[in-house]
Amino acid sequence: MAAKSSSPKPAEELAEAGREFYRRGWVLGTSGNFSVLLARRPMRLCITASGNEKGNLEETHFLELDDDAEILQGFGLPSAETMLHLTIYRLIPKARSILHTHSVWGTILSDVCFENGSIDIEGYEMLKGLSGVKTHAHKETVPIIENSQDYIALSHVIDTVIRENKGIHGIYLRRHGLYTWGETVADAKRHVEIFEFLFEVLGRQMK
Amino acid sequence: MAAKSSSPKPAEELAEAGREFYRRGWVLGTSGNFSVLLARRPMRLCITASGNEKGNLEETHFLELDDDAEILQGFGLPSAETMLHLTIYRLIPKARSILHTHSVWGTILSDVCFENGSIDIEGYEMLKGLSGVKTHAHKETVPIIENSQDYIALSHVIDTVIRENKGIHGIYLRRHGLYTWGETVADAKRHVEIFEFLFEVLGRQMK
Amino acid sequence: MAAKSSSPKPAEELAEAGREFYRRGWVLGTSGNFSVLLARRPMRLCITASGNEKGNLEETHFLELDDDAEILQGFGLPSAETMLHLTIYRLIPKARSILHTHSVWGTILSDVCFENGSIDIEGYEMLKGLSGVKTHAHKETVPIIENSQDYIALSHVIDTVIRENKGIHGIYLRRHGLYTWGETVADAKRHVEIFEFLFEVLGRQMK
Amino acid sequence: MAAKSSSPKPAEELAEAGREFYRRGWVLGTSGNFSVLLARRPMRLCITASGNEKGNLEETHFLELDDDAEILQGFGLPSAETMLHLTIYRLIPKARSILHTHSVWGTILSDVCFENGSIDIEGYEMLKGLSGVKTHAHKETVPIIENSQDYIALSHVIDTVIRENKGIHGIYLRRHGLYTWGETVADAKRHVEIFEFLFEVLGRQMK
Repeated sequence: MAAKSSSPKPAEELAEAGREFYRRGWVLGTSGNFSVLLARRPMRLCITASGNEKGNLEETHFLELDDDAEILQGFGLPSAETMLHLTIYRLIPKARSILHTHSVWGTILSDVCFENGSIDIEGYEMLKGLSGVKTHAHKETVPIIENSQDYIALSHVIDTVIRENKGIHGIYLRRHGLYTWGETVADAKRHVEIFEFLFEVLGRQMK
Repeated sequence: MAAKSSSPKPAEELAEAGREFYRRGWVLGTSGNFSVLLARRPMRLCITASGNEKGNLEETHFLELDDDAEILQGFGLPSAETMLHLTIYRLIPKARSILHTHSVWGTILSDVCFENGSIDIEGYEMLKGLSGVKTHAHKETVPIIENSQDYIALSHVIDTVIRENKGIHGIYLRRHGLYTWGETVADAKRHVEIFEFLFEVLGRQMK
Repeated sequence: MAAKSSSPKPAEELAEAGREFYRRGWVLGTSGNFSVLLARRPMRLCITASGNEKGNLEETHFLELDDDAEILQGFGLPSAETMLHLTIYRLIPKARSILHTHSVWGTILSDVCFENGSIDIEGYEMLKGLSGVKTHAHKETVPIIENSQDYIALSHVIDTVIRENKGIHGIYLRRHGLYTWGETVADAKRHVEIFEFLFEVLGRQMK
Repeated sequence: MAAKSSSPKPAEELAEAGREFYRRGWVLGTSGNFSVLLARRPMRLCITASGNEKGNLEETHFLELDDDAEILQGFGLPSAETMLHLTIYRLIPKARSILHTHSVWGTILSDVCFENGSIDIEGYEMLKGLSGVKTHAHKETVPIIENSQDYIALSHVIDTVIRENKGIHGIYLRRHGLYTWGETVADAKRHVEIFEFLFEVLGRQMK
């Protein structure tokens, strides 16, 4: 790892989140990808290489990239979704870690709520786990974006969605997975847990 | 830890409960808070500081407080919900540990049963896990209180609810979480497990 | 432990089953009890003492009893359900270990199927995990008995039910829990897993 | 183990998959069986012996067999389902590991979708975890075969089904379990996780 930050290193923190999410079934089958912003100008990020099991990440499973997704350090292929990470970092100044997960309840909700355009969550105490939210009365909107294999097009859509939805904490790719972020890995991990909890609460009450 | 009790120390017992509850998904996203009564007069309690992950609590994540919620020892902020712990300890002489958790099934039931005013559980053998309950025929009432960010008002409501419902083992804050207690951490932990089991049994049978 | 058997000792095997069942949520809140038959004539059994957490059993949490449920070794109280273990050992010559668990799906099914008198399971490959079952076409009947705090009466009912249902592998106490047994702890543990799997399969398909 | 491959040995990799699947409830009650192809001509495979708990496999729980299912090394009985492994290896040149698991959602879906002849999955990003699948728009067909205790007949059916369904990644035996395969144990394990995730997504949305 090129990251010179103090302990725990970004890769270690992401590996720990990976172990926990794998255990819960949110990154099965090598799905998901995780990153940390190492520097903003020029942009450098540490991100999981493609195709590794997320429950058992080691230092060699991470790459250091610049903002053209060129590899500065490490071996392996960057995920095709690296572009989405770069787009989010560029648009959200406070985001310094991005976690992307695939859960059963999220997948179901993203489909059921697709016509509505977003998963809307309101009135739950757990919402206070999202950075900056001070009351359960808060209404959180998680925009749902149609899934695509064209990641350039997807980046543009995400760009627009983030500009039009100030203050959101996450985005859902339909029948695909959640993107959420935070100022630290711990913040982003907490956001994953909060969203997944609330997705399950909503999902289990659907008729 | 100022607690001079013999091993295991209160903080260690609470940390162990936290690991287990986190694993089960009952304190996700740094939610929940746990306390032990160290002394009744003058009141001193050991309680989790705000904002820490409950699956990985260490001694430094606990505070020792007096009954004005002033910090006697430790670093960090007391949770805003500390007041609710103090209210419960004042009213229930046998309570020496309080555990507050957030579960999916509890959240759902607290909403579905809100108009009824309580979650009522009757006829299950597991009820015998609640202190003092001798038969499955027992009817347990878990009063549901509307959630609020005004913790002073909430304390008053809890005060009234406890006075009017002698012998209850827990209270549910609507769409928020369970408060339960016991004479020891082990008793309170057992109560969490009993309630969560029964909430799931009821929740899965709702039409 | 008085057991002179070779390693693993009965208490160790039961403790291991307890850890696994606790993890799966089948013995929450100190529920459940486990035994091994040490000798048949005169009858001696090793059984969990009452009130201990089943996920963390140690040698001191077990008692050695004779067939009047008198304590030969160990400290603590025998569970009130010891009598049911004795009844089962007396009637089923091949039973040398009995495991009693409390699960969400079993609790629900035992209630829904109560009028039918039994949980009937047929046509699943997993049935072949029950001792002596050679085909998925097998029809397994799990008699449901109304729960009671009168354990003498309950023993008599269990006695009758076992005599009238030759070849069964388990009994369900309504809204209470499963009793299953085997020639070894491993057999009984396998039966718990098979039944719980199939209870979940049936329970999730109930309308 | 006769396998001369470099570390990790096939048996170790299969044991690791077994621990994970057992934890998730996909090989309860000693169900399931796992194999690795050691050589294709003449065929030699390493396969779990019958009757062992899959969460705790050791080197002694594996057999080395030739393509008549004769034991070359190891102790114990080959599972009756060994024949199905041999059939799959013979027909699918790229298969070098086969994993057979029993899950609740798979069991339910295999029954509900039986009349349809297959479990059809389309439009989910997770499908890209199946080897060779490049887009979520992919339609995966998992043929369902009626369960039988006649493993010779079953082998013939599987033979036909594989010949008629080029490019499939798995087969479901009705109310029994999944067979999936890959070029490595890691590939086959990923396929199990992908299928189980998607079975749960579909199963939870059934009316």
